Amino acid sequence: MGIVQTWNNSVKVFECIKCNQQFSPNDYFTGCPVCLKKQQPSSLKFLYEQDMPWKIDKSAKGMFRYADRLPYKTFPTLGEGETPIISMNGLEKELGIPEIWLKNEGQNPTGSHKDRMSPLIVARAASLNRSTVIAASSGNAGASLAAYAAAAGLRCKIVTTPKINGPWEKAIRLSGAEIIKVQNSLERWETVRKLVEEEGDYPATNYNIPPVGSNMFGVQGYTTVAYEIVEQLRECQPTAVIIPCARGDLLWGIWEGFVESLRLGWIESIPRLYAVEPFPRLAHVLQGRDYREKFRGDSRLLPSIGGETVTYQSLDAIKSSRGDAIVVTNTEVEKAQWDLAKRGIFAEGSAAITWPAVSKLVKTGKIDENDRVLLMITSHGFKGV
Amino acid sequence: MGIVQTWNNSVKVFECIKCNQQFSPNDYFTGCPVCLKKQQPSSLKFLYEQDMPWKIDKSAKGMFRYADRLPYKTFPTLGEGETPIISMNGLEKELGIPEIWLKNEGQNPTGSHKDRMSPLIVARAASLNRSTVIAASSGNAGASLAAYAAAAGLRCKIVTTPKINGPWEKAIRLSGAEIIKVQNSLERWETVRKLVEEEGDYPATNYNIPPVGSNMFGVQGYTTVAYEIVEQLRECQPTAVIIPCARGDLLWGIWEGFVESLRLGWIESIPRLYAVEPFPRLAHVLQGRDYREKFRGDSRLLPSIGGETVTYQSLDAIKSSRGDAIVVTNTEVEKAQWDLAKRGIFAEGSAAITWPAVSKLVKTGKIDENDRVLLMITSHGFKGV
Ligand SMILES: [Zn+2]
Ligand SMILES: [Zn+2]
Repeated sequence: MGIVQTWNNSVKVFECIKCNQQFSPNDYFTGCPVCLKKQQPSSLKFLYEQDMPWKIDKSAKGMFRYADRLPYKTFPTLGEGETPIISMNGLEKELGIPEIWLKNEGQNPTGSHKDRMSPLIVARAASLNRSTVIAASSGNAGASLAAYAAAAGLRCKIVTTPKINGPWEKAIRLSGAEIIKVQNSLERWETVRKLVEEEGDYPATNYNIPPVGSNMFGVQGYTTVAYEIVEQLRECQPTAVIIPCARGDLLWGIWEGFVESLRLGWIESIPRLYAVEPFPRLAHVLQGRDYREKFRGDSRLLPSIGGETVTYQSLDAIKSSRGDAIVVTNTEVEKAQWDLAKRGIFAEGSAAITWPAVSKLVKTGKIDENDRVLLMITSHGFKGV
Repeated sequence: MGIVQTWNNSVKVFECIKCNQQFSPNDYFTGCPVCLKKQQPSSLKFLYEQDMPWKIDKSAKGMFRYADRLPYKTFPTLGEGETPIISMNGLEKELGIPEIWLKNEGQNPTGSHKDRMSPLIVARAASLNRSTVIAASSGNAGASLAAYAAAAGLRCKIVTTPKINGPWEKAIRLSGAEIIKVQNSLERWETVRKLVEEEGDYPATNYNIPPVGSNMFGVQGYTTVAYEIVEQLRECQPTAVIIPCARGDLLWGIWEGFVESLRLGWIESIPRLYAVEPFPRLAHVLQGRDYREKFRGDSRLLPSIGGETVTYQSLDAIKSSRGDAIVVTNTEVEKAQWDLAKRGIFAEGSAAITWPAVSKLVKTGKIDENDRVLLMITSHGFKGV
């Protein structure tokens, strides 16, 4: 597959999503340098030349359809993106809403949405002549980065914990990536930081505490989820999108994609974005606690969306879209996995979590008979969690 | 998702691929009745009204693009088909051939090519008002049928052996299907026959010995693989396609799709089709042994393409396309799985088997510098085999 990245000349400048200062395009692994100094970690977003008109390349496949608004116009590919949206006929009536869809990211090459980040991250690493990419991950992000690094001929290190489960570990090992096991989640980040700073490894994930999001070249890949929703659903767009959330990369990318779609007149309004979490983190912050705090709770069955922290980007996407954070517990997720499988969708627990969120939102009146709802199913169930 | 099948009125007649007798469209679970009486089991193919012109529906997604040449024009969907084709840059040079592609069927909803059969089978069962579909399967076919039955609101029974491995069993159980465990592969078929004949269950798989292929409504779904290759690769079509093979359903469907594509002038010639098997079965028959014999060999690591029998449809597709059968052993598959993962593709062993077949075909001169080769990767590696 080889290294074939082509920089997108439409990329103009990076801008902090918190203080709005602008920076020249480069790597900012710990987010906005100004906000970091003030101990208010925050991520940067890409701004593209707005007078360079762009359009969807209808003859291209997958993420390449939207290459005009990605950091690289070509990048190593395993066939990511263009995942289907299916209608959950019948369920909408039970809930008293006109439409429920699923977008199944489990149909990406390594079985999760992370495959939209990895190709852009390895493209970036290759363009800098870095030999090695690195991620702190106990699952999908690691399996995805390992596969794309292999496809691009780069070395890869995945820093994980002894809890990583079989299918992911096998996928990562077979790809030739090095697995580094440390005791816990926070120690993973310390190890990544050390290897980035001392050995020049190129990081795919956050390693700062409090965290910003993942590598921002990667996060740009998630804008394609919004573009696909816009393209696939045409005249009948969702009014609410429900997204599993840890550090909010997917949430933020979808937000950015909808903002751009609105700017171009492709949609008439931006759907409300709801972040689903296994215990209150964002929910606490939305009620007034500091976003830099640590939060504790049970995420045993949900390794892909565990963690004790939130990010500024999650808050911004929720507030700007007039959405909210919803808590769904481990126990509710077990039932949700079963419920979805009974309708033909075998989802990882951390993906099935969006399903119980719908009825909760209906019960509290946040979603009602005027809403068309789209659930992000971020990963398939064959990983055994 | 509900039951939404619409019969395709272009279906004209069924024809035996061996004796060419024609039959009115109906269910023929044990293939051609005439050939069966002569103890020469053989499958039937669909003939469509040739004066009803058809075209690809470019605005549709997945298999619906080719609905004009499927038994049902609408059917329960989970977002199957339209899997990517990726180029294995660099490998073609090592092998001295101009191009190698992979088509990754692991990106289907339940992670295998079987998702192209199941929607048409449940559509057929629903149109007959059958309450229950049934399959003999130790893996992909079972997981797929269970998911589509769930999506269509049908009951499902999967007859399997104690050897079925964890991820598949979990997927099937969660969907609500009944798992019936019997001692071995042949006993599975006996059980299916009994339940079809005595309880009216609708069969997705073969249950006859010697076997014909799977349910012919399902096999029609595999023609879409050929149509996608034609559509996705445009001016630069493969000259050889390499396909994992047990009973040859996929092989046959691809053959039929290419025959139709040639008839319509979409391609200039049909690629040679190579069937890959874990020990000589087709290879023996091509050298003169009777296709109704039983063959023994080692397929320990390859549950998806084991079995002791061959089918007439496999032989026909191989001979008609001037292809061949290639044997790849368990040991070679282990290395192949590793080789592919090192290039970013995490494939089930029974899917990775196509990769070592290429160098074997190059060594024997059957594939040379004039050949563009496409490998079918039928299933992803997260199933743990
Ligand atoms: Zn800032
Ligand atoms: Zn016949």
